[in-house]
Amino acid sequence: MNFIDIILKKRYGQELTDEEIAFFVKGVADYTLPDYQVSALLMAIVLNGMTDREMTTLTLRMAESGAMIDLSDMGGHIVDKHSTGGVGDKVTPLVIPLCAAFGVKTVKLTGRGLGFTGGTVDKLKSIQGFNINIDPKDFRKLYNDVGMVISGQTPDLAPADKVLYSLRDVTGTVDSIPLIASSIMSKKIAGGADSIVLDVTCGSGAYMKTPERARELADAMIRIGDLAGRKTVAVITDMDQPLGRTCGNVLEMQEVYETLIGKGSEDVVEVVCYIAAQMIRLAGKNEGIEGDDLIRECRARLTDGRALEKFNDLILSQGGLLNEHGLPVYVDKPFEALKVTSPETGYIKSIKTDDIGYASVELGAGRHKMGDKIDRGAGICFYAKVGDKVKRGDVLCSLCHGSKPLIDDAKLFDVMEKVLNAYEFSDEPPMPHQAVIDVIGA
Amino acid sequence: MNFIDIILKKRYGQELTDEEIAFFVKGVADYTLPDYQVSALLMAIVLNGMTDREMTTLTLRMAESGAMIDLSDMGGHIVDKHSTGGVGDKVTPLVIPLCAAFGVKTVKLTGRGLGFTGGTVDKLKSIQGFNINIDPKDFRKLYNDVGMVISGQTPDLAPADKVLYSLRDVTGTVDSIPLIASSIMSKKIAGGADSIVLDVTCGSGAYMKTPERARELADAMIRIGDLAGRKTVAVITDMDQPLGRTCGNVLEMQEVYETLIGKGSEDVVEVVCYIAAQMIRLAGKNEGIEGDDLIRECRARLTDGRALEKFNDLILSQGGLLNEHGLPVYVDKPFEALKVTSPETGYIKSIKTDDIGYASVELGAGRHKMGDKIDRGAGICFYAKVGDKVKRGDVLCSLCHGSKPLIDDAKLFDVMEKVLNAYEFSDEPPMPHQAVIDVIGA
Repeated sequence: MNFIDIILKKRYGQELTDEEIAFFVKGVADYTLPDYQVSALLMAIVLNGMTDREMTTLTLRMAESGAMIDLSDMGGHIVDKHSTGGVGDKVTPLVIPLCAAFGVKTVKLTGRGLGFTGGTVDKLKSIQGFNINIDPKDFRKLYNDVGMVISGQTPDLAPADKVLYSLRDVTGTVDSIPLIASSIMSKKIAGGADSIVLDVTCGSGAYMKTPERARELADAMIRIGDLAGRKTVAVITDMDQPLGRTCGNVLEMQEVYETLIGKGSEDVVEVVCYIAAQMIRLAGKNEGIEGDDLIRECRARLTDGRALEKFNDLILSQGGLLNEHGLPVYVDKPFEALKVTSPETGYIKSIKTDDIGYASVELGAGRHKMGDKIDRGAGICFYAKVGDKVKRGDVLCSLCHGSKPLIDDAKLFDVMEKVLNAYEFSDEPPMPHQAVIDVIGA
Repeated sequence: MNFIDIILKKRYGQELTDEEIAFFVKGVADYTLPDYQVSALLMAIVLNGMTDREMTTLTLRMAESGAMIDLSDMGGHIVDKHSTGGVGDKVTPLVIPLCAAFGVKTVKLTGRGLGFTGGTVDKLKSIQGFNINIDPKDFRKLYNDVGMVISGQTPDLAPADKVLYSLRDVTGTVDSIPLIASSIMSKKIAGGADSIVLDVTCGSGAYMKTPERARELADAMIRIGDLAGRKTVAVITDMDQPLGRTCGNVLEMQEVYETLIGKGSEDVVEVVCYIAAQMIRLAGKNEGIEGDDLIRECRARLTDGRALEKFNDLILSQGGLLNEHGLPVYVDKPFEALKVTSPETGYIKSIKTDDIGYASVELGAGRHKMGDKIDRGAGICFYAKVGDKVKRGDVLCSLCHGSKPLIDDAKLFDVMEKVLNAYEFSDEPPMPHQAVIDVIGA
């Protein structure tokens, strides 16, 4: 097979055969295709698209390019969740215990954060002793004993996707529905999922800037799931402002705890319950409860102590510390270093959420690049959000760092400037944001 | 400047600034841009196009990426010609002496053939002793003494184009009007041309398969010429069958001679006269003769001995041998090894000219890749062409090789098979082909 012919085919907008896609993925995984040819094909895919069958074949071949986790002998329907990323996204550490409160067992493989979106690994490591590097051979024991595993120690899932992604990152070919959809789905399928619930974020703090683009991506992933025999549901959620009241590692784990004792932020509760409800339903553990009733039941168990009990089980089972009152012990304590006050009187019209995410990284909460040090106490607390009425001088948010800040005072004021610039005000109340915009699929 | 931003700009269909294009060409020429990024941009250009200004800037920056030949002090308006390639294209060795017969002085830089199109260098080297490697420092003397220089020894013209072309060749990004147009024009401008006459071929033996595509390419080059301050004319010519009665090196030089003594093929005469007329006009040497009158005057001087005299001057000035009768001495003699006869009675409806070109390469007349040996005696003689009525058994063409064939008999029959397959017959006479389809520009 001649790879130039494959490039030409896609360049002329034709459909690639399964054999051609397999040849492509194999050549990427074993580095036999030169990267300049791969990037030319990627750009042709970006501009000429892919059919559902092409996307699905690409997904499956990428999934099979490395280890395929087989959880089938664990007994039970494996349901996985995935978020396309955001700022203040603490959904996973809430959804997993909530699912467990319905008897849904999960093995959740999760990644580190990079750029403006945080990662669940870093958040969980804010709990003292919490071991996020679970060896895959220990999955079974935890799965059977506790019903929950969260691990950042993932085997080499979909290595072809990894190679492709690093090339896309430097060739202007990241933003492509078929390439994003197949990248996400390949890792979920390699991870052993029978069903998949996707949290597709949209807005200024997400890769998809509009609900339309988010729906397009969700549709593509659902179609791949259908063709690949995995039930797939997408919950489109708002990321046009940070989710909840905090972003940062310890800050978000504190907010997780508050949510589990009924003091959570409504947007977090809503997103968590909609996603959990789909996972519970797909796993067949909804106990006959459907629709809005299931959401209500999720809300109840999220806050009445049942999810908290599972959350504590999870912490203890992975080595995390609870104090004598049963509260999580954190690795550091966030200090409010600077309060950001409103320069205007009016309504908060919008918050540029990616800028907030980048500001949080500059405070030390995240990494610009792999290997950067982070400050687990760093982050931002949001006192007012979109739609709130504020007076000049009211606190909009506060900038935090831990006991050993990575940022000096001069830099802190720069960050404050940036954060302030992310806020827009209006005299009229803006359209209220809905945390869950839509649920589609399955 | 960040090259990924440049790729993204073109990926989203935006126009690149002059600075961005300059950055791109510089990075290509000095190898500081990774080829995987360059190929991604190339594919984005292929699919999203370029404006006239972008093409012109690309052309000029590529021209300036290496040596710029300055012929301005030679006195006189330098007019250059360029063909987009074809099978049996012996126009250059006829046009140059014909122009000289009008007092138009030329410095013609020419390339080797590759793939199915032959190159003027190989054709002229079929004349014994003919030195095609003229050192640029000798251009002036020949120009002043003889008024004609044809050289394959070109300095490093437009090296950025060379790098880009070799990448395009392996990334499915050859077929793109802005990239082809800027590639051709960059070399012409670096070669010192004040005015440019383009022979834009179209049909099965050309890169542009239809007159529409040829016109599109011609238009693009004319617009570049306009913006770059070079008067540019394009003659659209038919390459839907081989030009003239032969393809191959010695064979074509013999046909050149026949043309100069009035025994040429009408299509060759027509193409040569239309191209020469434009060159003569642009050089201001048309002696007040215009339009059809100028074409007629060209026809006269091409065949009445005046162009032949100049042709002989050219041969002698570059070391070529004429025998005691004043005829060129060739390096080898073509033998008709196999006659290809018609399997049908009817009209020749079409000839797949690229297949004929490849057959000729297999006979030894050309190269599959640089460095391949060639047989200067090899080639094909055409006895019947499109529109001719043939009877079953009539000779369509003959396959030739030189005194030391590079092909054995078994292979010869394979080639015959391929050549036969290139012919299509019909009961009705097909539409006649026009050798010159259009003249556009200036």
